[in-house]
Amino acid sequence: MTDRKEFRDLASPEEAHEVVSSLDIAPEPETVPLDDCRGRVLAERVDAGIDVPGFDRASMDGYAVRAADTVGASERDPVVLPRVGTVHAGAAPDVDVESGECVEISTGAVLPAGADAVVPVERTHEVDGESEIAFETAVAPGDSVMAAGADVAAGERALGPGTEITPREIGLLSALGVAEVPVRGTPTVGVVSTGDELVRPGDSLDHRAGEIHDVNSYTIAAAVEEAGGEAVLYPHAGDDYDELERQLRAAADDCDLVLSSGSTSASAVDVVYRVIEERGDLLLHGVSIKPGKPMLVGRLGGAAYVGLPGYPVSALTIFRTFVAPAIREAAGRPERERATVTGRLADGERYGQGRTRLMPVGLVTDGAGETLVYPVDKGSGATTSLVDADGVVEVDADTDYLASGETVTVELFSPDVRPPAVLCIGEDDPLFARALDGVRSPRYLAAGTRTGFRRLRDGLPDVVVAAGPDEPDASAEKLTTWTREWGLVVPAGNPADVSGLTDLADADLGFVNRTTASGLRATLDAALDDTGVDPTAIRGYERTVRAHESPARMVARGDADAGLGLRASAAKLGLGFVPVGAERVRVLVNPERAEKAGVGALDDALADIAGLVADLPGYEDA
Amino acid sequence: MTDRKEFRDLASPEEAHEVVSSLDIAPEPETVPLDDCRGRVLAERVDAGIDVPGFDRASMDGYAVRAADTVGASERDPVVLPRVGTVHAGAAPDVDVESGECVEISTGAVLPAGADAVVPVERTHEVDGESEIAFETAVAPGDSVMAAGADVAAGERALGPGTEITPREIGLLSALGVAEVPVRGTPTVGVVSTGDELVRPGDSLDHRAGEIHDVNSYTIAAAVEEAGGEAVLYPHAGDDYDELERQLRAAADDCDLVLSSGSTSASAVDVVYRVIEERGDLLLHGVSIKPGKPMLVGRLGGAAYVGLPGYPVSALTIFRTFVAPAIREAAGRPERERATVTGRLADGERYGQGRTRLMPVGLVTDGAGETLVYPVDKGSGATTSLVDADGVVEVDADTDYLASGETVTVELFSPDVRPPAVLCIGEDDPLFARALDGVRSPRYLAAGTRTGFRRLRDGLPDVVVAAGPDEPDASAEKLTTWTREWGLVVPAGNPADVSGLTDLADADLGFVNRTTASGLRATLDAALDDTGVDPTAIRGYERTVRAHESPARMVARGDADAGLGLRASAAKLGLGFVPVGAERVRVLVNPERAEKAGVGALDDALADIAGLVADLPGYEDA
Repeated sequence: MTDRKEFRDLASPEEAHEVVSSLDIAPEPETVPLDDCRGRVLAERVDAGIDVPGFDRASMDGYAVRAADTVGASERDPVVLPRVGTVHAGAAPDVDVESGECVEISTGAVLPAGADAVVPVERTHEVDGESEIAFETAVAPGDSVMAAGADVAAGERALGPGTEITPREIGLLSALGVAEVPVRGTPTVGVVSTGDELVRPGDSLDHRAGEIHDVNSYTIAAAVEEAGGEAVLYPHAGDDYDELERQLRAAADDCDLVLSSGSTSASAVDVVYRVIEERGDLLLHGVSIKPGKPMLVGRLGGAAYVGLPGYPVSALTIFRTFVAPAIREAAGRPERERATVTGRLADGERYGQGRTRLMPVGLVTDGAGETLVYPVDKGSGATTSLVDADGVVEVDADTDYLASGETVTVELFSPDVRPPAVLCIGEDDPLFARALDGVRSPRYLAAGTRTGFRRLRDGLPDVVVAAGPDEPDASAEKLTTWTREWGLVVPAGNPADVSGLTDLADADLGFVNRTTASGLRATLDAALDDTGVDPTAIRGYERTVRAHESPARMVARGDADAGLGLRASAAKLGLGFVPVGAERVRVLVNPERAEKAGVGALDDALADIAGLVADLPGYEDA
Repeated sequence: MTDRKEFRDLASPEEAHEVVSSLDIAPEPETVPLDDCRGRVLAERVDAGIDVPGFDRASMDGYAVRAADTVGASERDPVVLPRVGTVHAGAAPDVDVESGECVEISTGAVLPAGADAVVPVERTHEVDGESEIAFETAVAPGDSVMAAGADVAAGERALGPGTEITPREIGLLSALGVAEVPVRGTPTVGVVSTGDELVRPGDSLDHRAGEIHDVNSYTIAAAVEEAGGEAVLYPHAGDDYDELERQLRAAADDCDLVLSSGSTSASAVDVVYRVIEERGDLLLHGVSIKPGKPMLVGRLGGAAYVGLPGYPVSALTIFRTFVAPAIREAAGRPERERATVTGRLADGERYGQGRTRLMPVGLVTDGAGETLVYPVDKGSGATTSLVDADGVVEVDADTDYLASGETVTVELFSPDVRPPAVLCIGEDDPLFARALDGVRSPRYLAAGTRTGFRRLRDGLPDVVVAAGPDEPDASAEKLTTWTREWGLVVPAGNPADVSGLTDLADADLGFVNRTTASGLRATLDAALDDTGVDPTAIRGYERTVRAHESPARMVARGDADAGLGLRASAAKLGLGFVPVGAERVRVLVNPERAEKAGVGALDDALADIAGLVADLPGYEDA
C-alpha cells in the first residue's frame, strides 16, 4: 500500500474543535438591500437616524382638539365644537386647531398645530350636518396621539451587531428608512470532490467499473448552505490528479474554506498533502472519533482546509460536529441551541474501540408518549442511514456497552426533526410502499418479515408488514391484509420454457433467491417442501438478495435465468412470469401503539385496499 | 366619514382559520435541479431506479478472497495466498479470483469475480515482497463486502411525497442519481402596499406631510418567504387609486395569493371592495380578535386575497396566525411544531373587550432559570414592539384579567427565539448603548431611570441603568458607574448667548425638556431647585420628549431654543452646549440575577470603561 505520512497520535475531539475554530474563515462585512437581508446577521449597531413617527400622529380616526376644550364633556352633556377642517394621512394639515375648534383627522395623520389630543370618532356624533361635532368624553393631552419619536427616537440604539435579521427586524429597519443593511459576509466554502469512481448524479453509471454517484459534494454543499455559508462546487474530472491539484488551488484562491471528502485513493490524499505542504500547514491529521478518524485540518494559502471522511454518513457527521459551528461563527449566526431529546435505548449496543463514537439513531414514540432510540447502522457507506436516522448519540470512548433501556441523549439533526408519525418494519411490499404516500412522515424499514417480528418482540415498531406463513411471536393486531401472486420471474417470452418450481432443479436454471428474512422466501421454502423439490439441487438457491424487485432486475440484466418474485415486478419490468401461488400480506399493529395518530393515518391510507390493489397486477384484496 | 359596507358580525378566529384554509393557493408542482432543492418539499414518491451500490463493493482496503480459502487462518498460523492483481475504486477489475488466490482491493472497488469476501489489510502481512499475502484471520462470505443493492435496491421506496429536503435527503437523491427533483411549487404571494403616506425606505420623508416609511410591505414579504412562499412587491404610487386598482388586478393575475395591508384611507378600502366585487367574492370581513379586527378575506379572480390590518405588529400577527399556515400548507411544508414556552406573568393585565387577544410579550429568565413573561405594548403602531417582543400569548375573549404570577403559554415568533441574554431597563444612555455591542443578544428598554426602578421592584429586569439623584427602592448591586456632562444644548455658536439655567426663565427661551421618567430630568429639577429657578417660569418646561438626543435634535431643527441634553449629543450634532453639571450613571444588577451569564457578559463589556468614555465628549470614568 502507498506510504502515507501520518500524524503520530489521533487528536481528541476537543483538540479538533479547537483547531477548526482557530481557522479564520470570516469574510469581510457587506451591505445588502433591505429586501434581501432576511436571515443575514447585522455587522454593526444600527442607531435610529430619524424619529419614528416623525411627527405627532393620530392613532385613531376622530377629531383633533385641545384637550382643555373637552373638560366636563360626557354622553349626557356633550361639548360641541365647530369642525374647521380635515386632515388625511399622508397630507400636510392645511388648518390649525384654535381654542374651541376641532379638525377631523384620520389614523396616521399629522396632528395639526394647536391640537394636543384626538377624540375617537366612536365617542362623538355629528350635529347640524357635519359642521359641528358633539364630544361625549373628555380627553387628556396626548390621548390617541403617538408623539414624534415615541416609537423610536433619533439617536437611540435600534438593533445591535450580531442580530439575526427576521421579518421583525426588517420591520424596524423599514421604519427607520434603512434601505441598505450592513451585514456579516457569507463565508465561501469550496467543495472539492475527490475520487476516481465518482459520477455526477444525472449521468449514467458503469457499475462494472465500480462507478458511483457523487453523494458527498451535493450533501456537503447543502449542509454548508444550511449553516449559513455559500457553497461552490469544484467537480473533479476522473482520475486526473493534476486537475485535482488545480481545483484545490483554485478553491483555495477563491474561498474562505475548502472542504474535500476523503477519497479511497491514496493518490488523492497525496495531492492534498502536496498542495498543503507547498502552500500551507497541516494542523491535524486524524481524530479519535468514529466515524471520522481520517479527518484532516490545515491551511491552503489564505484559505482554511478540512478533509472529511469519504463515507457520506461519516462526512456529514464530521461536518456537522466540527465544521458547521465554524461556518456559523464566521457568518455571525448565533450558535443555535442544540436540539436534543432524551429517550430509552431499544437495543443494547457494544462498543469499546477506544474512540468517541457518534452513533446515528432513529427515534420512535412509544404508546406512553416516551421516546425510544435505536441505533441505525446499515454498514459503512450506506446512504439510507442518512434519512433513516434522526440524530446522533455521542458515546464516550470509555463506554464499552450501552444496555437496552438505558437513557441516552440524542442530538437531533435539526431542531425541526420529530420522530416519524409511524414506524413500520417488515416485508418489502410495493402496495404497502404506495399506501404510505397517504401518510405524513412515515418510516418504512423494509428489512423483511422475520426482522419485523424480531423487532416487534423488542417492542420497537408501531407496525409490522408480514408476508408468508410465519406468525409473530409477540402479540399484534391485524390492521388489514391482502394477497400477492408470486412465482418465478423469467426473461420475456420465457425462453427456457420454465413451467414451475420443479424446473428449477431439473432444468439447471441459474436462480436468484431472496434473503431468509423475507416472507416470500419462507413461502418459497414451504412450496418447495410441498412439491418435494430439494433446495440444494437448485443452482443459485443460496444466491440471495434483500429487496423484492432485485431478482427480477437480475433476470432483466441477464444475470439469472429465473428469480423469486412477484407478478407485479415482472409486469413492471416487462418480464415473463411463471405463477406458483398467492401469499397473504398482513399489516400488524403493535397493540401498545394502536392509539398513535400515525397508526390511525396509516389505517386511513389503507382503507381503500380495492383502489390500491387495482394498480398492481397479481394483487387482491383478501 | 365614508360609508363602508360592513359584514354584520365579526367572524370568530376559528371561522377565519377555516375561510383562509379553504382558499386554494397551492401552485403546480415543478422540477428543480438537485443542487437547488434544499428546503423544498417532494411532490411525489421517489422509488430507487438503481441499486446502491450498483455492484458488490469492498468496504475496506484489503484483499479479495474466496472465504473458503481462509478457513483456519490465524495470527500464529496464517494462510498464505498469491496476490494475482489489484483492483482500484472506479476501475473495472481486470482479474478474477480463482480458488487459492487473492487480489489487492481498495475501499469502494468492485469485488472481482470469484471472490466472496474481503480481508482487511490490517489482518494481513506481505511475504516474499508483495507477491504473496499472509492472512491472519478467517472470514465468512460477505465479510467487508457491501452487496449490490444492500443500501437501497432498485424498486424500493426511497422517499415519500411531502418529505422536506434537507442535506440528508440530498445525499440519498444523489446516490440514486436523481438530478432533477420533483417538488411542490412555491406559492407566489403579491404584496400590494396601500396608503398615501407610505414612502419606500431609502427615500426621504416629509414629516410635515405625515409621510412614513412603508414597513408592512417589506415585513410581510419577508414573512411570506419565511413561510415558504415567494413574495412579489407591488409598490403603489402615492394616492393614485387607479394605479392601486391596476396593481391589485396585476397581482391577482400573477399570483396565487394577494395580500394588502390596511390603509388608513377609506378610498383604498373602496378600491379593494370594487376589485373584489367585480372579480371575486368577499368571504369574510372582520375577525373578533385584537389586534386584527379589520381583516378581509376573499377571492380576486383566480387568486386568493387577504387584507391585513395596517399597523405593523397587527399585520404581522394576523399574517402569522392566519395566513402563514395556509402558505406553508400550499408549499407542502409540514406544519412546524409550534414552539411554545410557559412562564409566569411579571405583570397583571386587564382586558375585557370581548375579543380574543394576541398579546405580544417579552421573555426574561429569572435567577432560578424560570421564564418570566411581560406584555409589550408600546401603543398601536409601534414598530419597536416587533423586536422587543419574543412571542404572543393568546388571551381568551372571556378573560378579563390576568394576574401577576399566573402561568401563561407563549407562542414564540420562531422556534429559534430565546429570551435575551440580559434584560436592561432604564436611562437612555449612549455609552451603555455602545457597551451592549460587546454582548450577544441583549435587550435594552430605554424607558427612563424611574421606569427601571419601578420594574426592578416588580422583579423584571436583570439590570437597571440609572442616572441622576434617585435611588432604587429595591435592592440592587452596582456593576459599574460613570459620569456624563449635562446642560443646555443650544444652536451652534449659542446665538442667544445662553449662560445657564437662570436664562431659561429670564430670557424667555423656547425650552424642550425630558419626560419625568428620565434621570436627567430629575437632575435638572434638582439643579433648578438649587439655583432657585421656578420651573413654571420656563417656557417649554412641560414640553417633554423621551429619548436622550431628542431635545438636541429639536434645537437643530429650529423647533426649540434650548434643550436639556448631554455634551455628547451637542458634539455629535454640531450644536452649542452650555454645561451645567455632571451626573453619575450607574449600572445596577438585580441581586437575584447576578449569576446570569448575560450579566457576566455585560460586566465584561463594561470592563474597559476608560476606552468607552474616550469616545464620548463629556463622559468620565467615575
